[in-house]
Amino acid sequence: MASAKSSKKKPKVPLVFQSPDGKSAPRPDLDLLVQQTIARVADKWTLLTLEALDQHGTLRFTQLAELVDGVSQKMLTQTLRRMEADGFVTRTVHPVIPPKVEYTLTALGRSLGEAFCSVWTWAEKNYKAIEKARAAYRERS
Amino acid sequence: MASAKSSKKKPKVPLVFQSPDGKSAPRPDLDLLVQQTIARVADKWTLLTLEALDQHGTLRFTQLAELVDGVSQKMLTQTLRRMEADGFVTRTVHPVIPPKVEYTLTALGRSLGEAFCSVWTWAEKNYKAIEKARAAYRERS
Repeated sequence: MASAKSSKKKPKVPLVFQSPDGKSAPRPDLDLLVQQTIARVADKWTLLTLEALDQHGTLRFTQLAELVDGVSQKMLTQTLRRMEADGFVTRTVHPVIPPKVEYTLTALGRSLGEAFCSVWTWAEKNYKAIEKARAAYRERS
Repeated sequence: MASAKSSKKKPKVPLVFQSPDGKSAPRPDLDLLVQQTIARVADKWTLLTLEALDQHGTLRFTQLAELVDGVSQKMLTQTLRRMEADGFVTRTVHPVIPPKVEYTLTALGRSLGEAFCSVWTWAEKNYKAIEKARAAYRERS
């Protein structure tokens, strides 16, 4: 919750650090870590899985496979395994026959979902503008 | 600007529509379009390129290649071409020798950058939690 609240302002972390003499030097520490984190979570299957779990609470693998449009079984397995490793989902195996496996977002996963809210709002608002731009681009090229 | 302002609330678009009888029916129209848009923009190279241009204004290809950590020339070319087609960047070719090609964000691209702000803030805040989760996962498995 706090993260969603404090996330409204642009973080002022430049990709390169401007040193006092005006030359830019790489900042391999924080920037790189943040870039790597972004690179990890900015993945469409992660995002769509996150959204499905956020909307529906706990889901079984087969339910997720239906909700995440166009995902293959292999890709969903990989995505869930990575999300579990990153601490975004918990995987619960119920000892029944046949085994029942369920996925739920952790607090960390939910906070990432909240951070992505504004991107969903943006997509709702702008998908028509993108379609228009694509049509214009096709005509030009 | 307006888009960043209105983007603070979670859009209440469920992935499946709950009909009055409690059964869920697919909503192929708006949901799918928004999902497809998200799937398109939630790409790490798009996101890192967007951020570099947002921070630096106008950049040449070689400058972008340096700023976007780990990107190959081929991938950057593809990313920029798709971003141009989607209406996120303008590509300006200056008729000099050797030719000078520059990239700048459009208003649409800048608005997407703004929408992603909260994700950057989240990453800054939570990359350590992810590292911890990974270490715990490695120990478990």
